[in-house]
Amino acid sequence: PDTHPFRCDFGETPVIKNRTMVDQITSFSNPLVKRVKRLRQKKYRRQEEAFFIEGLRVVLSAVEQAAPVEAIIYCPELLTSELAWNVLRQQEEAGVRSQAVTASIFASMSGRDNPVGLGAIVRTQWMDLEEMAASATASADTDADDIFVALFEAAEPGNLGTIMRTMDAVGAKGLILVGDTVDPYHPAAVKASMGALFSVKLGRTPGSEVLFQWAKTSALETVASSARGATSYAGASYNLPLLLLLGSEGSGLPAAVSDACEQTVAIPMAGTASSLNLAVAAGLLLYEIRRADSS
Amino acid sequence: PDTHPFRCDFGETPVIKNRTMVDQITSFSNPLVKRVKRLRQKKYRRQEEAFFIEGLRVVLSAVEQAAPVEAIIYCPELLTSELAWNVLRQQEEAGVRSQAVTASIFASMSGRDNPVGLGAIVRTQWMDLEEMAASATASADTDADDIFVALFEAAEPGNLGTIMRTMDAVGAKGLILVGDTVDPYHPAAVKASMGALFSVKLGRTPGSEVLFQWAKTSALETVASSARGATSYAGASYNLPLLLLLGSEGSGLPAAVSDACEQTVAIPMAGTASSLNLAVAAGLLLYEIRRADSS
Repeated sequence: PDTHPFRCDFGETPVIKNRTMVDQITSFSNPLVKRVKRLRQKKYRRQEEAFFIEGLRVVLSAVEQAAPVEAIIYCPELLTSELAWNVLRQQEEAGVRSQAVTASIFASMSGRDNPVGLGAIVRTQWMDLEEMAASATASADTDADDIFVALFEAAEPGNLGTIMRTMDAVGAKGLILVGDTVDPYHPAAVKASMGALFSVKLGRTPGSEVLFQWAKTSALETVASSARGATSYAGASYNLPLLLLLGSEGSGLPAAVSDACEQTVAIPMAGTASSLNLAVAAGLLLYEIRRADSS
Repeated sequence: PDTHPFRCDFGETPVIKNRTMVDQITSFSNPLVKRVKRLRQKKYRRQEEAFFIEGLRVVLSAVEQAAPVEAIIYCPELLTSELAWNVLRQQEEAGVRSQAVTASIFASMSGRDNPVGLGAIVRTQWMDLEEMAASATASADTDADDIFVALFEAAEPGNLGTIMRTMDAVGAKGLILVGDTVDPYHPAAVKASMGALFSVKLGRTPGSEVLFQWAKTSALETVASSARGATSYAGASYNLPLLLLLGSEGSGLPAAVSDACEQTVAIPMAGTASSLNLAVAAGLLLYEIRRADSS
């Protein structure tokens, strides 16, 4: 039903018509449009500490999780969902900047074949490891059942996003990216995370030294996933709070890193040529760890 | 070391030089080049019952699994791996057609940013359901521990490929695509399968009726994965041989389909907004089913 006050209903609701017709960005060289396009590049996301999200579900997640939304960008012609219009209105009422653009402008900013007409610029949020899990002995932050994941040099943004999505599903607390890992604010990572990007805390560290020191201080058990692991992931006993360490798609964890962990577990495979997708392996491990915790 | 007989070593090995210089396709309008490009489209893959694969690992898998390779296409300038040259030579000796192309021709056929210079045209192989698992009462084909997966209208080729990869890792036998599912020969599915495409048998059926009839005849237990499932996937008991039914990314299994299954299992999730990636969910279920079998 075409009853929402923001819908463009010519002649009937002149104020809305006015809003739609006048405030809409129509120029490809508008600074906001150029900014969104710039944010496709990791360099600018880092520099400006912001990223662009699009789609109803992910914008809803950002709003629900109180993510730092800088501006909502929408296209009145494309936006057909009542829920989307409600989110937009609520955000405007909460003082968030909103900006209408034409369909062709929105399409030029979008990474999708069929853009839905709702997007947002959100500020990136990196958390210090110390904040993520304070010292377990004197902490209100680290709970006995906390699960953290450290990812070493993962390269596929889709895998990173999917891992965040699974972390959200098992209630894992934080993801720490170690070394030269793909940007979690990459559009493909954001898309694959299905909004989990805003519920999982993100940290980063250039190498493993700081990571192990932090795990020790926070009294986290360190568990490495490695094809060379002696114990099957399903037979291991896990003691929470825990830090699960995962390697890259191509080469897994560096041997020195898995050797430094308290446990090294492997996922059994049938064929000799077999291997698992990184996000699938992470899913198996996270569910197994959570199951051990709740049983 | 530059000792492989196929490497282009001007002046020293005139025969090889000749082969490299003369037989190489240099024209973008060459029929073979045009064919490879055409095979990017589902329509032509269906029509010509063939698809293009690229990369050393996937070509190796095709060869190792005795997939019907129609032609190997390579670029002498790009091909640096000794293993790749060995595969090429072996295939040529086995009577497979090989064709050299220039780097720019290979790049034009490739879907990758950095093509490795090895690809192949392979014929698609759809298996009749009856062949995949013959009647369990009179069968040498259906083993007691066989696992089959039926996928309803999945849309993401990456998910489909990743599911095949996990099926290979748990030794699952066959994948049946039901309804309007994404093409398993889509380049992204082939890539994500990491060669598992050639070890997992593929079948298809337009609707669920034939599928259930086949499961009954083959004495397969039918297990549906559904968010509405009453039993947790981890607490259920699975009886092999078994058919696991999975729905699409967006809407899961149709209710009528999950209702028709002997068991319906759910994967527990922490948050209310949570959901899992389809390939991650499939991984959890396949590993759980295989574990129940081996324990």
